Parts: sequence; C-alpha cells; structure tokens
Amino acid sequence: MTVLMQVINPNTSASMTDLIGVSARAAAGPGTEVVAVHPGMGPASIECHYDEALAVPGLLAQVAAGEAAGAAGHVIACFGDPGLDAARELAAGPVVGIAEAAMRTATHLGRRFGVVTTLARTTGRAWELATRYGVREQCATVRAVEIPVLELETDPAARSRIAAECADVVARDGCDAVVLGCAGMADLARELTARVGVPVVDGVAAAVVTVEGLVRLGLTTGKRGEYAPPVPKAYSGALARFGGGSPGVPQTV
Amino acid sequence: MTVLMQVINPNTSASMTDLIGVSARAAAGPGTEVVAVHPGMGPASIECHYDEALAVPGLLAQVAAGEAAGAAGHVIACFGDPGLDAARELAAGPVVGIAEAAMRTATHLGRRFGVVTTLARTTGRAWELATRYGVREQCATVRAVEIPVLELETDPAARSRIAAECADVVARDGCDAVVLGCAGMADLARELTARVGVPVVDGVAAAVVTVEGLVRLGLTTGKRGEYAPPVPKAYSGALARFGGGSPGVPQTV
Amino acid sequence: MTVLMQVINPNTSASMTDLIGVSARAAAGPGTEVVAVHPGMGPASIECHYDEALAVPGLLAQVAAGEAAGAAGHVIACFGDPGLDAARELAAGPVVGIAEAAMRTATHLGRRFGVVTTLARTTGRAWELATRYGVREQCATVRAVEIPVLELETDPAARSRIAAECADVVARDGCDAVVLGCAGMADLARELTARVGVPVVDGVAAAVVTVEGLVRLGLTTGKRGEYAPPVPKAYSGALARFGGGSPGVPQTV
Amino acid sequence: MTVLMQVINPNTSASMTDLIGVSARAAAGPGTEVVAVHPGMGPASIECHYDEALAVPGLLAQVAAGEAAGAAGHVIACFGDPGLDAARELAAGPVVGIAEAAMRTATHLGRRFGVVTTLARTTGRAWELATRYGVREQCATVRAVEIPVLELETDPAARSRIAAECADVVARDGCDAVVLGCAGMADLARELTARVGVPVVDGVAAAVVTVEGLVRLGLTTGKRGEYAPPVPKAYSGALARFGGGSPGVPQTV
Amino acid sequence: MTVLMQVINPNTSASMTDLIGVSARAAAGPGTEVVAVHPGMGPASIECHYDEALAVPGLLAQVAAGEAAGAAGHVIACFGDPGLDAARELAAGPVVGIAEAAMRTATHLGRRFGVVTTLARTTGRAWELATRYGVREQCATVRAVEIPVLELETDPAARSRIAAECADVVARDGCDAVVLGCAGMADLARELTARVGVPVVDGVAAAVVTVEGLVRLGLTTGKRGEYAPPVPKAYSGALARFGGGSPGVPQTV
Amino acid sequence: MTVLMQVINPNTSASMTDLIGVSARAAAGPGTEVVAVHPGMGPASIECHYDEALAVPGLLAQVAAGEAAGAAGHVIACFGDPGLDAARELAAGPVVGIAEAAMRTATHLGRRFGVVTTLARTTGRAWELATRYGVREQCATVRAVEIPVLELETDPAARSRIAAECADVVARDGCDAVVLGCAGMADLARELTARVGVPVVDGVAAAVVTVEGLVRLGLTTGKRGEYAPPVPKAYSGALARFGGGSPGVPQTV
Repeated sequence: MTVLMQVINPNTSASMTDLIGVSARAAAGPGTEVVAVHPGMGPASIECHYDEALAVPGLLAQVAAGEAAGAAGHVIACFGDPGLDAARELAAGPVVGIAEAAMRTATHLGRRFGVVTTLARTTGRAWELATRYGVREQCATVRAVEIPVLELETDPAARSRIAAECADVVARDGCDAVVLGCAGMADLARELTARVGVPVVDGVAAAVVTVEGLVRLGLTTGKRGEYAPPVPKAYSGALARFGGGSPGVPQTV
Repeated sequence: MTVLMQVINPNTSASMTDLIGVSARAAAGPGTEVVAVHPGMGPASIECHYDEALAVPGLLAQVAAGEAAGAAGHVIACFGDPGLDAARELAAGPVVGIAEAAMRTATHLGRRFGVVTTLARTTGRAWELATRYGVREQCATVRAVEIPVLELETDPAARSRIAAECADVVARDGCDAVVLGCAGMADLARELTARVGVPVVDGVAAAVVTVEGLVRLGLTTGKRGEYAPPVPKAYSGALARFGGGSPGVPQTV
Repeated sequence: MTVLMQVINPNTSASMTDLIGVSARAAAGPGTEVVAVHPGMGPASIECHYDEALAVPGLLAQVAAGEAAGAAGHVIACFGDPGLDAARELAAGPVVGIAEAAMRTATHLGRRFGVVTTLARTTGRAWELATRYGVREQCATVRAVEIPVLELETDPAARSRIAAECADVVARDGCDAVVLGCAGMADLARELTARVGVPVVDGVAAAVVTVEGLVRLGLTTGKRGEYAPPVPKAYSGALARFGGGSPGVPQTV
Repeated sequence: MTVLMQVINPNTSASMTDLIGVSARAAAGPGTEVVAVHPGMGPASIECHYDEALAVPGLLAQVAAGEAAGAAGHVIACFGDPGLDAARELAAGPVVGIAEAAMRTATHLGRRFGVVTTLARTTGRAWELATRYGVREQCATVRAVEIPVLELETDPAARSRIAAECADVVARDGCDAVVLGCAGMADLARELTARVGVPVVDGVAAAVVTVEGLVRLGLTTGKRGEYAPPVPKAYSGALARFGGGSPGVPQTV
Repeated sequence: MTVLMQVINPNTSASMTDLIGVSARAAAGPGTEVVAVHPGMGPASIECHYDEALAVPGLLAQVAAGEAAGAAGHVIACFGDPGLDAARELAAGPVVGIAEAAMRTATHLGRRFGVVTTLARTTGRAWELATRYGVREQCATVRAVEIPVLELETDPAARSRIAAECADVVARDGCDAVVLGCAGMADLARELTARVGVPVVDGVAAAVVTVEGLVRLGLTTGKRGEYAPPVPKAYSGALARFGGGSPGVPQTV
Repeated sequence: MTVLMQVINPNTSASMTDLIGVSARAAAGPGTEVVAVHPGMGPASIECHYDEALAVPGLLAQVAAGEAAGAAGHVIACFGDPGLDAARELAAGPVVGIAEAAMRTATHLGRRFGVVTTLARTTGRAWELATRYGVREQCATVRAVEIPVLELETDPAARSRIAAECADVVARDGCDAVVLGCAGMADLARELTARVGVPVVDGVAAAVVTVEGLVRLGLTTGKRGEYAPPVPKAYSGALARFGGGSPGVPQTV
C-alpha cells in the first residue's frame, strides 16, 4: 500500500519546491509517494521572523489541503520549522520540521554537530530551535555563508563556500557531523559528506524518513491536550476561511 | 510631550480590546497616550497554536499601521506573545509582549511565581515562554481555570475561580507572586493582590510600564543583526500587501 | 537490494530476543532484513548498573560479529542504551539505542512524554539518559510497575498494570505520549496506543526505523574524532580477544 | 502626587553618588522625586566580593532610613546587586538592583547582549548574576576595560576604551545590545547608543524606570514567605543597632 | 605536624559554637586541631537574608583573625554559606562552606538527595545554592521542620520531627541520601543515618574533612583572578577597620 | 585503627598502577593503608569508549575482591570514571571516581577550572562527566596534549607540554584552577601548582582524601534504591563468575 506524504515548502518559490521534491523523493522508501507543494500566499523566500510569520497561514492551508487529500504525514521544509505547533493541532497525521529532524538525526551520529546556514540574521532562530529541541549542548556552532536563500541555486560560488564552512566546522569546532540549515541546500548533503569526511545532514531527507517511520509505526501527535484540533470559531478578514468547520476538518483554501 | 503607545489585542474581539485599553490607560503615566487596537483579520480569540499563528498577520499589519501613525512603542496583549520577533523587526520603536513583561516583572517581586491562565491546553506554551525568557526555575507552576477567553467577561464564577487558583498557588507552591496568564484578566490584578496577599501581576500593565520606560530611556530593538527591518520581497496571494516597500516602511493594510 | 540490520538484545535471554525480533521485523520496511541476536556471555536480564556493565562486552562482540557479517546498522535493544558510545566506535554503520530512539521519537508527538518502565531502581538511569539526550524538560515523569524484566512475559497482570500506569501518565501528568521503558514491552505499543488514547512508543520499533532511515540516507557515525575506531592494543585475561586486529575490524568472539 | 524613590550608591564616594543621582533623575518621570544617597560606613568603591560584603550593612541602614523617610521604592546602584535579598526583606516597597534591571531590559531589545564592565576580577560575579537572573544564554560576553571604578570619572581614556569595547561586543559577538556593568558609567549610555549603533543600557536608568513602574502598579515584594520582614532578635557588637524593633520597622542608623 | 583549622559559626550564639566545635572535632583526623569560634558582632542566629548579610562582617573579621593566628583553612558553619566568596579573597588557605560541602558530599552517595532544614523561609536560599553548586538536578527536595535555629537544642520534639522528615525524603522522594540544612543539627547525623537507613550528611563534618583534604594536598583558592586579595582602600564608619593594610593582610578586629 | 583503601587502576599496566599507588599514598593520611591494584583482564590503557567499556568487568572483579579483603572504600583511578555506578551497587563502602573527585575539588578553589588531558578523542567524555557532575558552567575548557596514556611516563616532552597547556588555561580562559585529566599525570600536580601559579588538582589524590573523609564520617552509598546490591542471577559465558552469590557478596574472580 502506498503512503502519501506531503512535503511543504513554506515559501512560494516553485523552483525551490522542485528541488525539495527531488531530495524528498530520493530519501523516501519504495512505499512512499511524496507530493511537494508550496502555499498560494506568502513570501517568495523566508529569511527573517517577518517572512516566517507570514508564511504560516499559507502553510497551514496546505496542511489542511493535504489532510483532505489523504496525506498520511507532513514535512515542513524550512529550517525555522514555521508553524509546527499549529500544524500539529490541525493534522491527524504526524508533522515534522526539517530543523528538528536534522538536529535530532545529527545526535545519533556523534557528540557534537555544527549548523551551516544561509544568512547570519537567521542564526538566532537556529540557536532558539536548538534550545527547544534539547540539543543546545550538542550544537557546537551555527555558521552563515551569507548567501540569500534563492541565490543558493544561482550563485556559482555557493557550493564551494558551503563546503568550506562545513570543513571549518569539523576542523575548528571538532564536530562529528554537520547540519545544513536551509531546505535549499537539500541536494548537497551526499556530495558534502564525501568531501568533508563527516556525515552532513539534510533536513528534508531527515524529515522524510522520520515521518515515514512514524507513519509505519502508527504514531502521530497526541491529541488529548495541547495538540487537540483547534476549536471552531469566527475568523475575520482575509483569513475568514481559516475559521469554522468541525474540529479536525478546518476549511481549506 | 505626549508619547503615543499602541496596545494591540491580537484577537478581533472589540470588547476585549476595550477592557485591555482601560487597564493599559490605568497603568500608563501622565505623558503617555494609549491607543488600544485589534487587527482587522484573524480569530475572535486565541486559545491554541493555530489561533495564535493566524492572529499574527493582522497583528503585524497593526504594528505597521501604528508605526505609520507615530507610535513610539507597542504592546502585544496576548499571553502567548504572538509575533513578537517579527514585530521587533518591523517596528522602529520597542515591542514588548505581556507574557515576557509579566514574567520578568514577577522576578523582581520574590524568588518564585506561579501563572494562572485560562485553558489547560495553553499551559505548554506558557512553559515554553518561561524557558525562553529564562524564568523556568522561578516559575513554580502554571494553572488553568478552564474558562475560555471570551467567557472571562461573562462567566459569573470566573472571578472567584481565578482567585481560588491564585490562593492555591501561594498556599501549595509557596510562590511570592502570581502572574495572570491572559490579557482578558487585566482588570483583576489589583483586587486579587489585596485578596491573595501577594502581588498579582497583570501583563498588560506590566508591558505598558516596560514600554514607557524603554521609550523614556531612548532604547529600542537592536537593528544591526537579527532584528534588522525585513528585506523587501514579493509576497503573493492574500498576503501580497505585506511585501515590498522600502525597508522599515512595509505596506500597511 | 536488501539491507541487513542487526538488533541486539544485550541480555542472554533467548525468548526475549525472539520477542524483540518479532517487534523489530514488524517495524522494518520491505527492504530490510532484521537479524535479532543476543550475546554469548553476560547476564540473563539487565536490571541494574552492574548487569548493564557486564552485558557490554558480549554486546560489543555481537556488534563486531554483525559488522563482519555485513550488517548495515545496529540497534541496542535495552532501555539503558548500554555500550552505545563504544559500539559507535566499533561499527562502521550507524548504531542506535532504544532509549534514545524512543525518547526522540516521542518529542515529535507533542510537548511532554512520560516513561513507564519495569523496576524503580532503573528510573535513575532513565532520567540520566533523558538529560543526556536533551529531553529532560519534555520528560514529565518516569514510572515503574515493579515487574522484573523476565516476568513481563509470564506475569498475567503485567499488561494491565502497564496499561494503568500509562493511563495515569496521561491523566495526572498531562503527557502527549508515553514511552515504554523496556525492550520486553515491545509487543504492547500498538495495543496500548489504542487503549490509552495517546501514542505509546516502543523503543525497538523506533530504533529500527531510525537506523533504516540513517542507512537509506548514507549517514553513519562521524569517524574523525571521538568515535574513530579503537586503536589496537593489548587486552589481557578473559577479554584478550577484544584487543589487537586492525582498526575497524576488531577480533570477534 | 509625587513618588519618593531612593537610589542608593552602596559605596561611600560622594562624587559617584552625585553622578548616579544625575542619571537617575534624567531617567525618572515627572511624578518621581529621586533621592540619591550613600551609606555612612563601608568601602569607597566596590571592586571585589570583600568590598561588596562590607558595603551591605551600610546599604541596609540606608534602606531602613529611606523607608522611614517615606521612600516608595529603592534602587541598589552597584552592578553586583549587593544585599538585594536582604533589602527586599527589610523594605515594604520594591527594591531593584541595577544588574537585574539592566540585564532584563536588554532582553527586550534583541536576542543577545554583552556586558562591558570595569575590572576583570568582577566578571565572575556578572556571570553569576546572569545565571541567577536567567539570562545566561542571552548574555554572550562579559568584557572588562580594566579601569578601576573611581577612575572612570578621572581617566581621560575611559570613555574611548569603553566605546571600543562596546563596538567589539557588537562586531565580534553579534550582540543586539550592550549593558554597562558599573553605576559609574551611568552617564555614558545615550552617547554610546549613538556611537555604537545598538542600544546601550545603563542599569541606573533601567532600575529607576523599573521601580517607577512597580510603584505605579502597586506591586512590591511578596511578603508571605522568604521575604517576610526579618524577625527581631539580638544583634551584638558594632552592628547591635541592626537588631530588635518590631517586624518591618528595623532600627535605622 | 598539627594543622590548625578554624571552624567559624557565623552567628553569635556561644552554645551553638560549642555544639559545632564538638561535631567538627569528632570529624577531624588526628593531625588536625579544630578551633571553633564565632564573631564578636552580628545576629544571634541566621534565619533570613538580612541576618545572613549582617553576619558577614564579623565572619570576615574572624577569617582575618584566624589567618593571623596561623589557621591553615576555614569552615563557614552556616548552611547559607554566607560570605564565602569574600572569605576566599581574604584567606590564603582554603575556605569551605557547609552547604557546598554537604551537597557535594551527598553526590558521592547516590543519584539524588534531599535537604531537611529549619525554617521554610530559608528553603529558597537552599535551592539557590543547589543551583550555584551544580546539584539542582540531584537535589530532589528541600524540607523545613519549622523549628527556629536556637530551639533545635531546646525543643524536645526537634529530634523526632527531623527524623520523620528525613524518613519522608527517602520514602516519598526516593532519595539516596539526606543533607541536614543547619549547623545546629550537626550532632544528629550519625544517629539519623542509623534510623533512616540512608546516609545523612552533616555539613560541618563534611566541610571539616574537605578542608583537611585540601590542606593535605596543598590546594587553596586560586589567587590570580577573581579571588586575589582585596585591594587596600578606605573604609569608613563602623567598618573602617576593615580597610587598608597590605594585600592579603587586612586589619583584624 | 588502620583503614584499608583500595585504589584501582582500571587498565592493566603495572607501571601505571605503581605510579598511582605512590601518588595515592602521598595523599593519604596516617591512618590509611592504600592498596593499589589493577584488574587481571582488560586493556593496557584506556583511551576511548571501547577501552573503557572493556575495562569495567575486571574493575568490578577488583571491587568485589577488595570488599572481600576488607577494604573500607575504593577509588576508581581513570579519568572517565568507568563503572562507577556498578561499583557503587557492588561495594558496601564508598566508591569515588577521580574525575568526580577532581572536578568537585576544583569547585572549592574558585569559580572556573580547566581540564588538561591526554588525547583529544577523550575530551567529549570529560565534558559529559562535567555535565553529569553539575560543573558544566564551572568547567571553562578541556584541552588535550595529544600524548597517549602510556607515553606520559616515557615521552621526555610530556611534562613541559602539560605545563604549557596548564599555563594557557589560566592565561586564555581565566581559570582559577586546573584539573589533570588522567591518572597517569598524578605525580605532576604539586610541581605544576608551583609552576603555573594556580592550584592544579590531581584526581587520584583528590579521590583518596574524599574516600578517607567519607569513611571517617561513616558515610557510604545509599542502598535502599538504585544502588542496592545487584540481584543474584545467571551470568553466562566468560562472565559467568560474575553472577550468583548472595546480594552484596558477588563472586570474586
């Protein structure tokens, strides 16, 4: 039986959704059908808290749409893990963010890891997530290559700058593994693992296999407390369609 | 010279905005003009992560509108402190959430405090914020009275149930202070302080005096790193108006 | 292509190895061949630090034997995760303990989980692991049913006592998920999930899907620092066969 | 109605008390009358634990004197926050130390801050307070300019060395704000904020607005447990006058 | 060669000093001469922060006097460890507080311990010290028997109430050891160890053997940074005698 | 009356056992007879997790043998503190590891210490122990001189490289004390203390005086919970002799 997994790129860049889809499908096992999508509203890329906050409504609409379409689980494919708690309330199936998946995967690979991400202004959020996910001590460093998200695909120097930063994470900080801090780097993990000499973890792949595992084991978000379905209530203005409906079946876009 | 302070109720309930406005004005000093507002879009009350996530776009529009109208600072008047980081990027002036203000205020009043909030499903978020704000050890307990936000005004038993829980926080957990975990309880703090015998902190009032202090001292969010203004970029769909514009002057609703 | 995964029961009880093997195979995907083994030396069950320490040499011999036999990864199927660091040095492929797998899996299912284990004297070790794996705050409680490991299979009351404790973890501690704290409980997870109403996580299954994921992504322990293969050196006495050999290919039993 | 606030310089240097008074009055709102005082006994400056310990009796006598004179609240204007807990027991009104006020204020201004203080031997105490106040993770660095407290006023190079260190805190540690770690730097905050480009927080001003806020909201130390008034008892020797009296009205000097 | 060790009771109660001296001498080895002293000024007992703060000047004078008299090391025999940092600056030899000694000793005896102390209002300080000494997780509970310090000797029910609380620490909190939270309980440890069935640690004895060990190994406070001798400077008022002198040889009382 | 203390070198190198014995005897008081031993089976040196795991069975046999021979307490003389929990279950008397003893001793000597050890691959374990023992914040740095354990005695440059690293720990990290991270450095502590100018702590000596103190005070591991004697059960294979026997009197080798 095929399992349907929805991988959501929370920004609205179609080419990045394609890249993420390729990586996700490469990670998925034979029984999993990956659908890579992006929201119909929101920012073209997510590079600050403002972008992240505004990506969430569209992301949640995609979660609801995916649930309606029979998705057994969801991946949120942005390293800030935007909207994760809200998506867990909304979805019947498991929801995993790529930062949590990547950081937790890295803890199985040694004592310490480092994160290599895009812009310095996002490193604070990465540290915040490391704290939330309980890996603050295992996370030795968070580095930025100062390449905007959408230029990862176009900047010819991107690959070598990322590789150089990964190598430095190992040499200077003595890390046993490296985590790539952006879904737009998903295609680089295998090449970098070979080049750097320690495992380099892509969160998209890590989240795909994590969700696959949860689905196979019949595990999903606990629904008896904090993560119960949102209570239906009035939503006004441009977001009115998000309210109402019966619990667990919110209105889709 | 009068200072304009914007107090934003992130839900769309006008009567709750009024109640918050009264409490905020009671807390403000003579030189401060308080404007209490709520967004034009979003949920009628915020009682879960989903509600919170969908309250943020409207909240951010209000921050932008307030900035354009000359507000020197902003209060986010919901105990989950929704959108705080994004609002700090957006605003030139300081932005303070009522949970951070209340929790930090409580730390000046003794060693340990407890939180009394509305619904049990929101206690996880309160603990998360206590961790983020560094007061996890000082926060001895988070209690819920199981009264929905909008029934705080209408339930005749609300006041006595909240008072009973506050008293128990002192008797059983040995707390030196109590924090009220909902903006809709803002009018109860002085009465409860007298009744319970330890200081009871309302976050709306605490945030108002915190923002007043920051404005008077000429202090605002540091803007050279993580909290720099959002970079203008394309936003699509129902949120298109949030994108573009020059840095620091995003489009208002 | 079939992937060979070795699941090691570190105690020497064959019936428990069988039970673990059944659970592991039920969790594994179609491309994985699970081999469930136990050491030729060591204690019949692991119920204290002494037992755990003395289970490790035999466990390490099994890791080496599995590596020689082409195992792509290993599961250590005892909730104390005995010998995990040493096994990671020894194996080329990934090694995952069932406590780390179960605890980390539980963090994807909500905010807080509880552990239900066998004997009270092992709860200290469970807390120690929760700290090491960074989930101390997420772990709300560790409970013991006071049933010795090998009586889990024979005590007719075992099932209902475990179920009662799981239910209490949800009711009293407000947990979103429960972790079963013994490999001997591996067969109970699905039934308990249905009965208790929140996800109940078996570490054997969680570790199997975790190792499968790591193998599929080509990720294994970082080998350039702490987890490099043990340097060959003289070992004396009953453990002499553990020394010598070339790095990465220690002598098997 | 005017509120009387006592700002206590715990050392016995009159010129430093004057400087602190000027800064405190500049921070205070229109309804606040600031009285800046220093003890009649103790060290001329506080630069180590020994100095700090011996400053406390005189400081407590000033707290008692201020209470008798009708002070509504107190600021302890030394960055080690000496005697804070004891003063909270003694005073009916709120008591705030400048380190706690400055550090907590800084947390409203971004994710990370750094401290610039006088002597390297005091940095251990600053870290200890950061831990106590729950901002250990937010505090990225504590730097010393190696200028003794009383030379801050006379050393012509002091200002530029402090500015250089503040700039480095931003450049090297990526801080969003800087905290000045000595009451003797109180007059520099506004100038440095302009020069360094991120908010620079003076603890004296931060504590003044914090106490003003607490007084306006009717909040003071919880008095039902740890911070109840000291029980009257015999004190002997040079400190005999500190004992006796009725609870809450200790003998003044 | 005999080693002179000074055990300082920081309150001014002679009978309690005698009791402490007896316990200290019982703990000391054959080569150690214990001198038990108390300050000439300060409170008759220490039961709150105010008492503690005012006990410190007299305590420091005793440290200086002991140094002049050739003491090789010092014990501060009050469970709040008052003046510890200042005493370490002042003394050439090691200084150990009974709370740190007792708590650290308890960590060698199992995983978790509980503290049984006198008054509930002092439990906050005990928790603060547990955090400072890094044993917050090992300290499972802090209990108060609500007997004032000086009544420990006279209250006929004291012994049985303390024993009952110790027993409950084991039964309810599963502690492996109990720490007595007051120097006035020093004579009870051996009896309680037998009665309760787990080790009961008296801080006076623990500190005596700790200081003996440090002296024998030639270890004392590091003096090149934070704990260098206080710089001589002017002290005024009743504490004038504390200032001046050459570094390391402050004026004694 | 003479107290018999067993100091166990967990590796099988006789010359290192001799060196440890000399240091231990130098640290012991007049009433203590030190017996320095090493296991009959296991690795010649301990330099990774694998070595450590395989040293434990022999170590435990020595603990049992020492108990049978009347040892009042035990020191585990390897900086990884291998087998500590198991040994505490097995022994009636106290058991102390040299890492816990050294780290805790260092906390009495100032605010921060650094560790200087042998190989970089062991630093992860040192950090893990610092966390377990609650001194993560006090431990400023862990450095490796990259000299294998058994070359400490033979490498003519060892002494000066260790001294240089200790000096750098003070100069660069501002530490008040240094901890030597290997039992093979036990003879260097006094010389280095003089050379470096801050106390340098050898764990063997620190553990000897710690155990002496515990024995003198009649304190030993709490035996009513986690550390109760191992329950007798079947052990198979080369470790069969470790099983059986009555609780508290396991079979010796």
